[in-house]
Amino acid sequence: MRAVDIIMKKRSGGELSREEIEFLIGGYVGGAIPDYQVSAWAMAVFFKGMTPTETGVLTEVMLKSGTVIDLHGIPGPFIDKHSTGGVGDKTSLILAPLVAALGIRDPMMSGRALGHTGGTLDKLESIPGYKTNLSVEQFREIIQKNGFAMTGQTKEIVPADRLLYALRDVSATVESIPLITASILSKKVAEGAEGLVFDVKFGSGAFMKDPQEAEKLARSLVDTGAAMGKRIIALLTDMNEPLGNMVGNFLEVEESLDCLEGHGPADLMEVTLELAARMVVLGNRAKTPSEGRKMCEAMLLTQKPRQLFLDNIKSQGGDVEKFLSLRGNYRSPHQKVLTAARSGFIKRIDAYQVGIAGVYLGVGRNRTEDAVSPTAGLQFHKKGGDPVRAGEPIMTVWAANDGGLQAAIPLLQGAVEYADSAPGQRTLILKEIASA
Amino acid sequence: MRAVDIIMKKRSGGELSREEIEFLIGGYVGGAIPDYQVSAWAMAVFFKGMTPTETGVLTEVMLKSGTVIDLHGIPGPFIDKHSTGGVGDKTSLILAPLVAALGIRDPMMSGRALGHTGGTLDKLESIPGYKTNLSVEQFREIIQKNGFAMTGQTKEIVPADRLLYALRDVSATVESIPLITASILSKKVAEGAEGLVFDVKFGSGAFMKDPQEAEKLARSLVDTGAAMGKRIIALLTDMNEPLGNMVGNFLEVEESLDCLEGHGPADLMEVTLELAARMVVLGNRAKTPSEGRKMCEAMLLTQKPRQLFLDNIKSQGGDVEKFLSLRGNYRSPHQKVLTAARSGFIKRIDAYQVGIAGVYLGVGRNRTEDAVSPTAGLQFHKKGGDPVRAGEPIMTVWAANDGGLQAAIPLLQGAVEYADSAPGQRTLILKEIASA
Repeated sequence: MRAVDIIMKKRSGGELSREEIEFLIGGYVGGAIPDYQVSAWAMAVFFKGMTPTETGVLTEVMLKSGTVIDLHGIPGPFIDKHSTGGVGDKTSLILAPLVAALGIRDPMMSGRALGHTGGTLDKLESIPGYKTNLSVEQFREIIQKNGFAMTGQTKEIVPADRLLYALRDVSATVESIPLITASILSKKVAEGAEGLVFDVKFGSGAFMKDPQEAEKLARSLVDTGAAMGKRIIALLTDMNEPLGNMVGNFLEVEESLDCLEGHGPADLMEVTLELAARMVVLGNRAKTPSEGRKMCEAMLLTQKPRQLFLDNIKSQGGDVEKFLSLRGNYRSPHQKVLTAARSGFIKRIDAYQVGIAGVYLGVGRNRTEDAVSPTAGLQFHKKGGDPVRAGEPIMTVWAANDGGLQAAIPLLQGAVEYADSAPGQRTLILKEIASA
Repeated sequence: MRAVDIIMKKRSGGELSREEIEFLIGGYVGGAIPDYQVSAWAMAVFFKGMTPTETGVLTEVMLKSGTVIDLHGIPGPFIDKHSTGGVGDKTSLILAPLVAALGIRDPMMSGRALGHTGGTLDKLESIPGYKTNLSVEQFREIIQKNGFAMTGQTKEIVPADRLLYALRDVSATVESIPLITASILSKKVAEGAEGLVFDVKFGSGAFMKDPQEAEKLARSLVDTGAAMGKRIIALLTDMNEPLGNMVGNFLEVEESLDCLEGHGPADLMEVTLELAARMVVLGNRAKTPSEGRKMCEAMLLTQKPRQLFLDNIKSQGGDVEKFLSLRGNYRSPHQKVLTAARSGFIKRIDAYQVGIAGVYLGVGRNRTEDAVSPTAGLQFHKKGGDPVRAGEPIMTVWAANDGGLQAAIPLLQGAVEYADSAPGQRTLILKEIASA
């Protein structure tokens, strides 16, 4: 078997066999097949796609390149949620303790901020003392104790994806639905989840701008996951405007706590509850999403999820007292209030521009090796749909340094779109896609 | 400027600027841009193509990666012929002395056998003592003295192509018309030719099986060459059956001498004369191809081209007496005569299968580092169109070793197609493509 023939077969639109995919990916991970063949193959996949069978095999082969987290001995069900990335998206921090309170175990492995999108690990690390590099043993222990744990991906998890993703990133082959599917799904299956809820975002702040493309990815994730024996539900959610009123690392942890205390913003609560409701269904604690949602709403009122959130902070090395004392005043020094340029209505605050501004403020990063600030970010006083008078505050911004603040301001001003009349209600959840 | 953005632009079907192409190819040759980005880019080019402007810029950028042979001081015109590769194709050996006798200078840089196709350098090296690694100074001197010289590509000629071709070969990105165009044309322009005749072959023994694809390549070569200020004519010629009656290294040199002595096979003479006629036109020695052909035919009768051929052998270190004494008896030891399986007509002897059989016999090679035999090969006693009786000899085969002979025989038997009635006359030259 030769790698060049496998590339040529894919280039011609052929379906690769299990043996061919194993040969290529196994050879790449083992060092026998060079990166210049794999990048050419990835570009051929970009143009020619993969069948559901091929995507499933690729996912399995990638999964088997590393270890699967062993959760035996801990009572399940193990259900996780994965988002394709957005701006102001802190749903993970809210729903993990929420569903844990309902008996669902969430073995959550998250990523970091990159480009305009935020990262759960960066948010958690803004909590003083919080550790996101748990050993497998610590991960297991904390799941058993609190019902969930939140950590970074260990090196043993899908090494093939780390190699392949880094190569795709520099060879312009990221935007391929089968390759994205295999990358996401292999990691999520490796963390030990039995059921998965995918939050596939579309719109300016999402990886997929176009709802149709997002739907294709959702369908691919659901079908490939189902073929691997996992229960999967995907929701297509709107990421044209940041989720919630806070964008930042500590700011988003604060807003998560607000939600757990029952006073979260409506858009954030809506998406969080719909995702959580489906985790409850996949964990067999409810028959329908609406029943699951009601259970989640009732559980929030008990404050048990809030306590589990604080328990988790403690379990993962965080200082709960310090965290609570910092609430409301842990902000970067360079502050600015942006006001409305005109009267009327806010039509929308563009998520992508806010995300890019966030990188200047210190919330996110352009390169994986860059550091982020815990305290940078912004808080919206108005969002899409709100009436506004000229000069009224729209957002407060905090930056790690003045240069970043000055760079972010025009982007943030440009992100605010106005309208003369009240814009129509946004549909936050466009569609649900589940296995047949 | 980032390589990944250039790849992405091409992936989306965009037209790359001169700066972008220079950045990518220059960076690759200089070592700043890694092969895994260039292979992904090449695959994107395979799918999205290049505009004529882009192809021209790529050709120029590749050309400028090395040196152009300086032929100043030698009176021109300098006209070369290049074939896209075939089986039994020894036209170069015949037409170079032929047009030289008519005052055209041919600075010929050739390649080696690879896969099923033969190579001019391997043929020439079967002549005892013949050197194909001339220095630039020797190349100039011999052109000045004999009107032509035949050598391998020096290291200073288009280093970008050596790198890029090796990468394309292993990344399944060879079959891209703009990339082929830039590869061929940059090398041909670098050898100092002012005008070029391209023999673009189609059919089973050609690189392009399909005449439409061959025509696209011919058109691309002509248009890109014209944009670079070169006079170019391309002929589309049939390579479904080997050209002439001999396939081998010394065997083909012998057959070339037969042609120069006026008794070459009809198909080989037809293609050679049509190509040579156009070299005479490009060199301004004739107004039309038919006038050029008449001049070539008349010149052959003078035996002057034969003498120039022998002079060249001497100039390039060959032993003319020994060469002439070996004629007719310099053959590999393992011989076999293949006979007709049935009576009727030979419909065709498939060029591709003969070419592959040639690798087993020792004529060609599968890997560039393999050696070839000077004396292996075969001679046809019958070809397409000939009537045949069962048991009559069709070809005599000579192999370097018995294993090779045994491996080649079934391929060669399978290469012979029979018909009940006389097949129609083949059109050897399908089309002429010249710049507008």
